[in-house]
Amino acid sequence: MKTDKILLDHGSGGKISHRLLKDMMLPIFDNPILAELNDGAIFDLRGMRFAFSTDSYTVDPIFFPGGNIGDLAINGTVNDIAMCGATPIYLSVGLIIEEGFPITDLGKILNEMGKAAQKAGVTVITGDTKVVPKGAVDKIFINTSGIGLIPQDINVASHHARLGDKIILSGTMADHGITIVTQREGLSFETPLSSDTAPLNHMVKEMFSASNDIHVLRDPTRGGVGTALNEIAEQSEVGIKIYEENIPLTSAVAAACELLGFDPLYLANEGKLLAFVTYEQSEVVLAAMRANPYGNAATIIGEVVDEYPGKVFMQTRIGGRRIVDMLAGEQLPRIC
Amino acid sequence: MKTDKILLDHGSGGKISHRLLKDMMLPIFDNPILAELNDGAIFDLRGMRFAFSTDSYTVDPIFFPGGNIGDLAINGTVNDIAMCGATPIYLSVGLIIEEGFPITDLGKILNEMGKAAQKAGVTVITGDTKVVPKGAVDKIFINTSGIGLIPQDINVASHHARLGDKIILSGTMADHGITIVTQREGLSFETPLSSDTAPLNHMVKEMFSASNDIHVLRDPTRGGVGTALNEIAEQSEVGIKIYEENIPLTSAVAAACELLGFDPLYLANEGKLLAFVTYEQSEVVLAAMRANPYGNAATIIGEVVDEYPGKVFMQTRIGGRRIVDMLAGEQLPRIC
Repeated sequence: MKTDKILLDHGSGGKISHRLLKDMMLPIFDNPILAELNDGAIFDLRGMRFAFSTDSYTVDPIFFPGGNIGDLAINGTVNDIAMCGATPIYLSVGLIIEEGFPITDLGKILNEMGKAAQKAGVTVITGDTKVVPKGAVDKIFINTSGIGLIPQDINVASHHARLGDKIILSGTMADHGITIVTQREGLSFETPLSSDTAPLNHMVKEMFSASNDIHVLRDPTRGGVGTALNEIAEQSEVGIKIYEENIPLTSAVAAACELLGFDPLYLANEGKLLAFVTYEQSEVVLAAMRANPYGNAATIIGEVVDEYPGKVFMQTRIGGRRIVDMLAGEQLPRIC
Repeated sequence: MKTDKILLDHGSGGKISHRLLKDMMLPIFDNPILAELNDGAIFDLRGMRFAFSTDSYTVDPIFFPGGNIGDLAINGTVNDIAMCGATPIYLSVGLIIEEGFPITDLGKILNEMGKAAQKAGVTVITGDTKVVPKGAVDKIFINTSGIGLIPQDINVASHHARLGDKIILSGTMADHGITIVTQREGLSFETPLSSDTAPLNHMVKEMFSASNDIHVLRDPTRGGVGTALNEIAEQSEVGIKIYEENIPLTSAVAAACELLGFDPLYLANEGKLLAFVTYEQSEVVLAAMRANPYGNAATIIGEVVDEYPGKVFMQTRIGGRRIVDMLAGEQLPRIC
């Protein structure tokens, strides 16, 4: 598809946004660190290895069951840094606020940011506040950037998946995405839905204490598990096989997805991670994850195979196979 | 003034935004690094000293004489890091784009960002792109965050101004601010106005090669020279005296300010710095600045005195004195 305008699809995390990144941005900011396309950048400086990550949060609504734009912004960047195998240390916060925004709401958001930072054990050491005239931004957008340190013996990257690796998902899928959708639609369910926003850095530390044989870590946010696995399959040039019946999903999320016609494989998670672990160490890492409150429903959902390199496919409940493709464009704008 | 809504004044860099920062943010994100309130955060890690800074750019219009939102966003964060005495190394870029934004305009902005990064000698190693539905943001906002290293023998901070220090301004004042204003008003002048957006990190390096007796560095962006000097006077608990006749100002900027009723002391600069240097070393540092293209109009505009601690005052052309107060609120939203 040719277009001369930016579409919602360009920010989706799917195929079209990948093309924007690869065709426009990589050639301009040409450097090997950016070209790695990890959740955060990994670089060496004076013998130390750092992770550095940035994300802007534009979620709508700004308050939702399970969280708000504030703790989402802290947890999101904490997790991006943790997915580099790093211990997140320092964060920056950039607020862009619409004129007329209620100060009590800003207070609530900042309070939740403070609590989230404390829970994650990170410190917000610098910030910036811009207020723009009414109509120039919808309520409030938040950018967080962060810095972490990577222990010398840890080496995870999106292109490190290896044949035989087991793929662990840390818990149920699609909770954040479906919560935001149903809030927007004004729907309510018997079993209330709630975002899974959470800091995963402590669990990651515990995983590495259990074993260093972790090849890839990824938090399946925008675009969900389906998109994250496709990126890893492509970057590692391996085939990925997942088992439908193994993928954890609450019945409430499953019902809401069916009702609204969403595939939970592509819905955002904000407190989950995917880990690619050697076959030998997979049970040890799984046990470490299950011992953490954010990983108590962790499950092995698949493995790296030599079929279909660069692709993801699913063994369905009824025994069939289907390719889990990367979505072209945007299912849901302003999901995070 | 009591209000329950966020006003443009809260983002001004003036008194009201300082109150927001001190009353709401500092207590929540309570830590000594943030409390320093430098342009960027300064922290130690494993024996190295780092600077870390973030800024969101919401300038309107996005293209203006002398630059655009892209090079402004690179130069702004490069300069904030340089003002910590650091060598900026790595940057992140977070784009928030409105659906329907022309791809050619995005290309132009990214190109200028690439060129600006090259000129400053920094590398953009991580990024994030969000596209939001039409009306949720005005065209494009850009966040840049950055990391720099501070050489061990450099120690500048907003509270380091000392009695007797000479105050050097690196060139003419108010060029960026008045250019944006006149663009918005659709005014044109015989002598065209142009933003001064520029990376100052190379000049800062040359200044420190000349002398380490530099106590404070500050780029007078939002709120201009007047606001920056007030912050330094307050944080260093010293009096600041400036000489009206010494402050460099192009006749075009002076004329436009007079016509439009703006005080150039409070208009934004995007390629200028203020340096507080010991009396003994001030001429050496001044010479180093003048040898750099971005400092060729550098001038000593004032000094630190024992009168009026915490205040800034100006010796006027006709020999009088007036207090240069910190503005309460916003003169110009979306100036950078």
